Amino acid sequence: MIVSMKLGATKEQIERVCNRIEDMGFQVRSIQGDERIVIAAVGVEDVTHGIETMRSAEGVESAVPISAPYKLVSKQVRQERTVVAVGDATVGGSEFAVFAGPCSVETEQQINACAEAVAAAGAKFLRGGAYKPRSSPYSFQGLEEAGLKLLRNAADSAGLKVVTEVMTVANVNLVAEYADVLQVGARNVQNFPLLKEIGASTNRPVLLKRGLSTTIKELLLSAEYIVSHGNANVILCERGIRTFENATRNTLDINAVPVLNEMTHLPVILDPAHATGKRDLIPPLTRAAAAVGADGIMVEIHPDPQRAWSDGAQSLTFAQFAAMMRDLEPYVALWAAGRAKLIAA
Amino acid sequence: MIVSMKLGATKEQIERVCNRIEDMGFQVRSIQGDERIVIAAVGVEDVTHGIETMRSAEGVESAVPISAPYKLVSKQVRQERTVVAVGDATVGGSEFAVFAGPCSVETEQQINACAEAVAAAGAKFLRGGAYKPRSSPYSFQGLEEAGLKLLRNAADSAGLKVVTEVMTVANVNLVAEYADVLQVGARNVQNFPLLKEIGASTNRPVLLKRGLSTTIKELLLSAEYIVSHGNANVILCERGIRTFENATRNTLDINAVPVLNEMTHLPVILDPAHATGKRDLIPPLTRAAAAVGADGIMVEIHPDPQRAWSDGAQSLTFAQFAAMMRDLEPYVALWAAGRAKLIAA
Amino acid sequence: MIVSMKLGATKEQIERVCNRIEDMGFQVRSIQGDERIVIAAVGVEDVTHGIETMRSAEGVESAVPISAPYKLVSKQVRQERTVVAVGDATVGGSEFAVFAGPCSVETEQQINACAEAVAAAGAKFLRGGAYKPRSSPYSFQGLEEAGLKLLRNAADSAGLKVVTEVMTVANVNLVAEYADVLQVGARNVQNFPLLKEIGASTNRPVLLKRGLSTTIKELLLSAEYIVSHGNANVILCERGIRTFENATRNTLDINAVPVLNEMTHLPVILDPAHATGKRDLIPPLTRAAAAVGADGIMVEIHPDPQRAWSDGAQSLTFAQFAAMMRDLEPYVALWAAGRAKLIAA
Amino acid sequence: MIVSMKLGATKEQIERVCNRIEDMGFQVRSIQGDERIVIAAVGVEDVTHGIETMRSAEGVESAVPISAPYKLVSKQVRQERTVVAVGDATVGGSEFAVFAGPCSVETEQQINACAEAVAAAGAKFLRGGAYKPRSSPYSFQGLEEAGLKLLRNAADSAGLKVVTEVMTVANVNLVAEYADVLQVGARNVQNFPLLKEIGASTNRPVLLKRGLSTTIKELLLSAEYIVSHGNANVILCERGIRTFENATRNTLDINAVPVLNEMTHLPVILDPAHATGKRDLIPPLTRAAAAVGADGIMVEIHPDPQRAWSDGAQSLTFAQFAAMMRDLEPYVALWAAGRAKLIAA
Repeated sequence: MIVSMKLGATKEQIERVCNRIEDMGFQVRSIQGDERIVIAAVGVEDVTHGIETMRSAEGVESAVPISAPYKLVSKQVRQERTVVAVGDATVGGSEFAVFAGPCSVETEQQINACAEAVAAAGAKFLRGGAYKPRSSPYSFQGLEEAGLKLLRNAADSAGLKVVTEVMTVANVNLVAEYADVLQVGARNVQNFPLLKEIGASTNRPVLLKRGLSTTIKELLLSAEYIVSHGNANVILCERGIRTFENATRNTLDINAVPVLNEMTHLPVILDPAHATGKRDLIPPLTRAAAAVGADGIMVEIHPDPQRAWSDGAQSLTFAQFAAMMRDLEPYVALWAAGRAKLIAA
Repeated sequence: MIVSMKLGATKEQIERVCNRIEDMGFQVRSIQGDERIVIAAVGVEDVTHGIETMRSAEGVESAVPISAPYKLVSKQVRQERTVVAVGDATVGGSEFAVFAGPCSVETEQQINACAEAVAAAGAKFLRGGAYKPRSSPYSFQGLEEAGLKLLRNAADSAGLKVVTEVMTVANVNLVAEYADVLQVGARNVQNFPLLKEIGASTNRPVLLKRGLSTTIKELLLSAEYIVSHGNANVILCERGIRTFENATRNTLDINAVPVLNEMTHLPVILDPAHATGKRDLIPPLTRAAAAVGADGIMVEIHPDPQRAWSDGAQSLTFAQFAAMMRDLEPYVALWAAGRAKLIAA
Repeated sequence: MIVSMKLGATKEQIERVCNRIEDMGFQVRSIQGDERIVIAAVGVEDVTHGIETMRSAEGVESAVPISAPYKLVSKQVRQERTVVAVGDATVGGSEFAVFAGPCSVETEQQINACAEAVAAAGAKFLRGGAYKPRSSPYSFQGLEEAGLKLLRNAADSAGLKVVTEVMTVANVNLVAEYADVLQVGARNVQNFPLLKEIGASTNRPVLLKRGLSTTIKELLLSAEYIVSHGNANVILCERGIRTFENATRNTLDINAVPVLNEMTHLPVILDPAHATGKRDLIPPLTRAAAAVGADGIMVEIHPDPQRAWSDGAQSLTFAQFAAMMRDLEPYVALWAAGRAKLIAA
Repeated sequence: MIVSMKLGATKEQIERVCNRIEDMGFQVRSIQGDERIVIAAVGVEDVTHGIETMRSAEGVESAVPISAPYKLVSKQVRQERTVVAVGDATVGGSEFAVFAGPCSVETEQQINACAEAVAAAGAKFLRGGAYKPRSSPYSFQGLEEAGLKLLRNAADSAGLKVVTEVMTVANVNLVAEYADVLQVGARNVQNFPLLKEIGASTNRPVLLKRGLSTTIKELLLSAEYIVSHGNANVILCERGIRTFENATRNTLDINAVPVLNEMTHLPVILDPAHATGKRDLIPPLTRAAAAVGADGIMVEIHPDPQRAWSDGAQSLTFAQFAAMMRDLEPYVALWAAGRAKLIAA
């Protein structure tokens, strides 16, 4: 239920409304709009429950049910797009965000070189894995905290933000010390204890990757876990789904961008590296990402992809990355013009 | 096997090589290049068969196996992109092709109105179904030849080319009388007798739609059926594949465009209408189609989509279509610049 | 709409009801039940159309809408299971049907040997392809009519029924001359002109294979094409669907058997050979087919699978087939006991 | 690498071999066979590494590479089937295991009633969720430790074993206090920190459910995480994969049973409740599970499915469960006869 207070509703009226909502079994999420107070009440399955009561409450302008199973992330609750601020950078607003870096942090030299290449190309976010979810227990599992340190130093030297994955509840605070954005990987998109912890214990922005067979609705419900536990700074990421097609590692579900833009106010980026598994396919798909209205892209780069400890086949060389960024420029310019119109509207 | 003759090879040498190739069990497909004769020999499964013999033949520069299971449509056989000419229009060259029209031809008034809207927006191809493959026997099955006539008249009045579906061997010649481009629908992508007939009995350009669960490799093999039977004018069309995701009718496999561009010299267009089933998603996806390097798009329009006899939910109104075309312009301009560079290279 | 006449309704009443139904735009399909006349009226999309009119017509006991999009194949129209008679054999009744034979008819010797092996193991149906739908134009396409002749002779000598594929409208009558059961292959499950022709021009039983990405509902609609055009003798066949899993060629959708048993009165068989692509997996899956309540199975056998012209990897040797049939016996006995109970109920 | 020692190899020889293996970078997993010592060496990606060295080592009979990416769970390492003992019950041996119970533990009365129904029908394992992974944060999340206590008491009173899900590293020891078998749910099949913890900190048998889009190879690698960290008691569970088909909630991949039986020595059970989402489909599929050679089944029951707090549509009533178990009996008898032969062989 979304309860909109009248313009000029008193503090007492608002308090009484909130208490009443809680008495009816809801949890209150107060969302201060620009002009008027709007209260989201969640946690009750019956969508019509309490609507009539609230409509007759003093100071209430309107009370409407939230019909979608996800609530706080829904456009029904909030029309304006969420702009996630990461220091002086943003995702979801007027900047097209580029996340780039190696699959895994390997060595100081490697991550520093990557950071310089990322900065040189004009991107703001350095990605890199210190905790790696690998299908095989015998594959490289990441440098762990040592990797986080290398990543932080490299980013600081190059003036970049750090994006890195957190895999388990126990590590949320540790990773949050080093990272500007916490990544939840595709395999953890329905690791609900992890989502709850990230929602409750940190305000760090979260990059939530869609799983290989997660429906769009389920992705939004996973985002709802984070937001409903207290952290509203969620960026969604489509990174390919599993289909019968085997010419590519996965199938980039580009439909998901306009679909999500209709369903949620959260930003959405695309990751064409994991979605294809093939270096050569990435540049055209990043152009498509800008054209379709995504809020940004994530790609993998490596000083020597053939020797990468993981994901080499889908990593760009620095030269390829620089060329990709140049080719992307006119598309980003069109994107920015479209975004400016959207924001003005 | 691809046999390249030396510059200045004599007619006799070429003939002897062709005869020898046929003696070894191959079929000869002679492909005249700009400067030298290149002969594609197909129809023998063992890819190394005959290579040594040919290398030592008089007048032969080189003989190399075709490792892909598809041959004539492969980039191994032909590096330059195929440009399919449809009267004074082209697909695969320097024009971004736009195919638009109603799902079904319904009435003279409806198809004429559509044709005018298509022409007004600057598109060149009028699509429309006269023979409709419908899941249910109780759904409208198309106006058949009467529909073809209406379609042809509407296109002629508006100065457009006709694209329409042919569903069965017996109708190939009839449909080819009215159509400029024969469409093979998704459900017929592996209707091999139909593909053979279209290859053998007509030179009309063919728009071959990928099936709902056709792999990219299978799509190329289906194109190979047409080309190997004598019709080289094939345009491929990705129109969504079936996946678990149900927020959209199908999943547009945009990866397929750069993948196909690496594997084949045939043009590739995208059909975001069938790939999503939702009108609102189409404009952003057409921009993505241009950005990713597709050779064109196909969309559905209708004077009154709510009353369309089929596919109303994914049909644009004329106003929406006009707006989409305007929004697409700067992307098509970027596309054209990129294509010009590609052709120059 | 299903109209049930009263017990003792007169011929005139029935005629008047049929005329009225046709006047309302329906096609009449009269289905004579054991005791009373039941009329299926199809071809009008509005499911409630005419219900009230019919309820008040003389001699009418009840009129109910058919809510499923498929009508004649639905259990709403007919509760008792359809038993398809093929000479003195049946599918869908009290016999567990076994269809076996080579993928392709190759030589007289090969098909005769197969026929003997099939008969020796106690199976009644000899399958074999004379027209082969192959992904590649360069693969063996079948012996065509010569193959049909070999197949017919082999079956006759061994006392078996012939099941073979028909791929195109023009061949329906030819294939029907040689075959006892016409197979529609997975790639033609939505080849609607073919389905219409098979429905209209022959009463030969039809084995309709589900496509690689055909939903169960679409499969029933394809069957409806055949039945509504006049041929009620349809056997459905689940043969594996396309999924992300690549350990097997396809995924056998065994769920489809009990689902179809709830939705339709038509018989359903399973084809574990195409559903797996691996010989070793077939015997356990045939046992599962009997246990889950399928009406039969289809498998591939070959005198020398390593040298088969097609599908060798999934073909059983004669010895493996004989062993499989022996192992299946107790499961077929349980199946028969269950079926006897079902029929008695 | 698998190193087989000679019969009569001395303790010193074995020690020297183990040291040498570790010096080469492997981890040693000693597997005592019945007659001779077999040592599995894992953790080095190059499969041929060290083979020659080991072949010439004293006391060594043979050294062969493990070509599969999973090692310890592979049949290459161990031919005999793993029999997981759970108190006096077993999974993978001569008993067909039946796991039954409610989706969620709701109340003392509910779980006690379920336990009695499970025992009355002759099953040995009581399943029930105390920690529930739910797509929506607003759905019931389980009774947590209070639920574990109710479950344990109900099982003890009825003489059953407890199977229940553990969702996070922090809870492994707590759940292991109450449970006889730890379940890893489909959404956690690639929650690698959880798998490592379950491998390292407990010897409780583990029921590892395949994820919705987990390949069979990935499932084995996830099992390898557990086994390589020290817990060899793993039972695999196929519970439906995500496909395009929407007549059922998921598609039961019954192919997986014979495929896994060829690839691994671990037991495999089927869960037709989650694989279909529909109560009526479960009995025939449990019969198929026995027929195809699964080691057991898992189903959901509830005293009043319509009022179940979760998964009501796929829960059997007690009467339906009892009937299912009776109908299953002759299939289990055939299963046991087949298994006895397999063990004797």
